[in-house]
Amino acid sequence: MKDKNVLLDHGSGGKRSNMMISDIILPAFDNPMLAALNDSAVFEIDGKKLSFSTDSYVIDPIFFPGGNIGELAVNGTINDVSMCGAKPLYLSVGIIMEEGFPFEDLEIIIKSMGEAAKKAGIQIVTGDTKVVSKGACDKIFINTSGIGVVDNNLNINGQNARVGDKIIVSGTIADHGMAVLAKREGMDFDTDIVTDSAPLNHMISDMLEISSNVHVLRDPTRGGVGTTLNEIAGQSDKGILIYENKLPVKDSVKAICELLGFDPLYVANEGKLLCFVAEEDCDKVLESIRKSEFGKDACVIGEVVEENPGRVFLETLIGGRRIIDMLTGEQLPRIC
Amino acid sequence: MKDKNVLLDHGSGGKRSNMMISDIILPAFDNPMLAALNDSAVFEIDGKKLSFSTDSYVIDPIFFPGGNIGELAVNGTINDVSMCGAKPLYLSVGIIMEEGFPFEDLEIIIKSMGEAAKKAGIQIVTGDTKVVSKGACDKIFINTSGIGVVDNNLNINGQNARVGDKIIVSGTIADHGMAVLAKREGMDFDTDIVTDSAPLNHMISDMLEISSNVHVLRDPTRGGVGTTLNEIAGQSDKGILIYENKLPVKDSVKAICELLGFDPLYVANEGKLLCFVAEEDCDKVLESIRKSEFGKDACVIGEVVEENPGRVFLETLIGGRRIIDMLTGEQLPRIC
Repeated sequence: MKDKNVLLDHGSGGKRSNMMISDIILPAFDNPMLAALNDSAVFEIDGKKLSFSTDSYVIDPIFFPGGNIGELAVNGTINDVSMCGAKPLYLSVGIIMEEGFPFEDLEIIIKSMGEAAKKAGIQIVTGDTKVVSKGACDKIFINTSGIGVVDNNLNINGQNARVGDKIIVSGTIADHGMAVLAKREGMDFDTDIVTDSAPLNHMISDMLEISSNVHVLRDPTRGGVGTTLNEIAGQSDKGILIYENKLPVKDSVKAICELLGFDPLYVANEGKLLCFVAEEDCDKVLESIRKSEFGKDACVIGEVVEENPGRVFLETLIGGRRIIDMLTGEQLPRIC
Repeated sequence: MKDKNVLLDHGSGGKRSNMMISDIILPAFDNPMLAALNDSAVFEIDGKKLSFSTDSYVIDPIFFPGGNIGELAVNGTINDVSMCGAKPLYLSVGIIMEEGFPFEDLEIIIKSMGEAAKKAGIQIVTGDTKVVSKGACDKIFINTSGIGVVDNNLNINGQNARVGDKIIVSGTIADHGMAVLAKREGMDFDTDIVTDSAPLNHMISDMLEISSNVHVLRDPTRGGVGTTLNEIAGQSDKGILIYENKLPVKDSVKAICELLGFDPLYVANEGKLLCFVAEEDCDKVLESIRKSEFGKDACVIGEVVEENPGRVFLETLIGGRRIIDMLTGEQLPRIC
C-alpha cells in the first residue's frame, strides 16, 4: 500500500525511509554507488579513492545536554565519511535559518562547529547560508557534506560481514536519543544523560593501523543499533546474533527508556560505531577502541552467523531468542 | 551597528550576508580557503586538485516557469563547482521535507534531478532525507554539494581580474528572478519569461580548451550581476566599468522589471556566467560560448579598469556614470 503524502516515519531511518528511497530516489538517480546504501559513496578520481557523504541536521531542540546542532553536524558527517575507513579531510556547511533567529545562538553554534572541526583535525572549506521568512523553517537546519581519502587497499562496507565476525559496539548505546528526549520533554530530574556526539575518525584510523580484518563499520544513528544491524544483515545477506546481557546501556538511560517505553536498541547514537571484525583480530581491535577517549566502554555484543541470512536475532536475558526487526514507525522525530 | 537577530537580508547574498560571514563565520572556521569567498573551495589531495561546493535551495514556489527546485539544485551546484574551471563529477543530495508533502511532487522533483544530472554528465552518489513535522519547514528544502577535478595549471578565481580584461556575460540577465517572481505574485499575463536554470560545465570546459587567458568565472545568482561584479572588484582590487547599452535583457523581462521597480542588474540568474578574459582571447572565447545551447546571447558588457579599484561603475545610456553598489536589502527572498 503506497502512501500519498510524506509521513514523519519516512524520515526515521527505518522501514518507511528505506521504502521511499527504493521506490522514488534510487530509480531516478540510477547509480550503483547510491544503491549500495552505505554511509558514504566511495569512488576514484584518477586512481585516488575518496569517500563523500552528506547529512542534514534538523534536531529539535537545537541546544541539548552535552551539545548543540552545530557540533552534531560536524561530528555526524565526519563519522559518515569515516565509516568506510576513510580519513576525513574537508567539510562543507549549508545553513538555513529562520528570519529572527538570534545572532547570539548562531555564534554559539558556529563557534562549536569550528571547535569540533579542530578537534577532529578536519577543515570547513566552503559554505552557504540561506534565510527564510519567519515560520518557513523551525529556527535552524544545517547540512554538512564531507570528503575523505580512503586507502586503496581498504574495502570496508555493509556488504562485507562474514560468518564468524565478532560485532563490537564502541560504548554505551541510546545516550544521544535519550538526552535529546529528556530536554525536549522538559524532564529536569537530575540525570547524567548527555549526548555522546563525538568524532570517531581517529578511533577508526587507529584500529585500521593494527588490523586488516575489519569488515564493516557503521555508526548506529537514526533507528539505533537495531536498525543498523538489520541494514548490514540485509546488505551482507548474513544472520546476526546479539546478546541482551552484553548490550552496554547506562543505568540512567535504561531507567528513562523503561519509564517512557523506549527500546535502547532503536534509540539514536551520535558518537558510537559498530565494528565487524574477524574473530582472530577481535581482542586487539577492542583494545585499540578502548584506548580512544570515546571508546572506553567498548565491548563485543554479538556475532555474524550462518542461519537466518538477512535477519537479526537477540538472545534475551532468560535465554530465548527474538527477532530484532528494523524500526517501524518514527520513535523520535528530529533526533539529529 | 550590529543586528541582534537574523533578517531576511542576511540571506540576500548582498552586503548584510557578507557582514554576517565576515563577523561570525570566518573567524570561527578560520580557514584561508573559506576566506577566499569563491563559489567553491579548491584544494589538493595527493597532488590532485579538487573543487568542492555546497548550496541549500529554499526557493518558493518550488515549481516555477521552466523549472523546479530539484533541477535548480543540481544545476546550481554544478555551476558553483565549475566556476574555478573544474570538471564537476559527483553530487550529494540532502532533502528536508515537511510532513504531508505530496509524494507526487517529490517524484517530479527527484525525477528532474536525475535528468538534470544526466544532462550535465555528473552522478548523484550519496544522499540523506529528513522529515520534520508539519509547519517546521515550508514544503521542501534541498541541499546539494558537489566535487569536481581541476586541471593543475588552472588558476581561475575572483582574485584574478586584470586591468584590460573584457567581461562577457553568457546571455540575457534577470530571467530566473523575474520568472519566479511572476509565478509567486500570480501574474498570469502571457509571458515568455522562464528560468534560465542550466548546467554551464560544458560551456566552461569548451572555452578552457581554446583559451588559457580566462581569469575569472562566476555565476551571478543571488544579488545578480551587480553584486557579483562588486565581489570580483573587491577580491581583485580592480575597477570595473560596464555599459548599460550592452546589458542583454529580454524585452519582456525589462518590462516586468520596470513595472515592479526591479533593477535587472540585481536580479538572480541561474544559468549564466560572467567571464573575465584577456582582450586578445575575447573574440574566440565569445564565439565558443555562443556555440553552447545556453550561450547564444553572450556578449561583452564591460571591462576591468585601473581607476576606482574595488568599485563597479555603469556608463548609462545617456553617457553618465553611476556607481553600482552591492545589493543592500533583500529584493527577492527565497529566489534560489
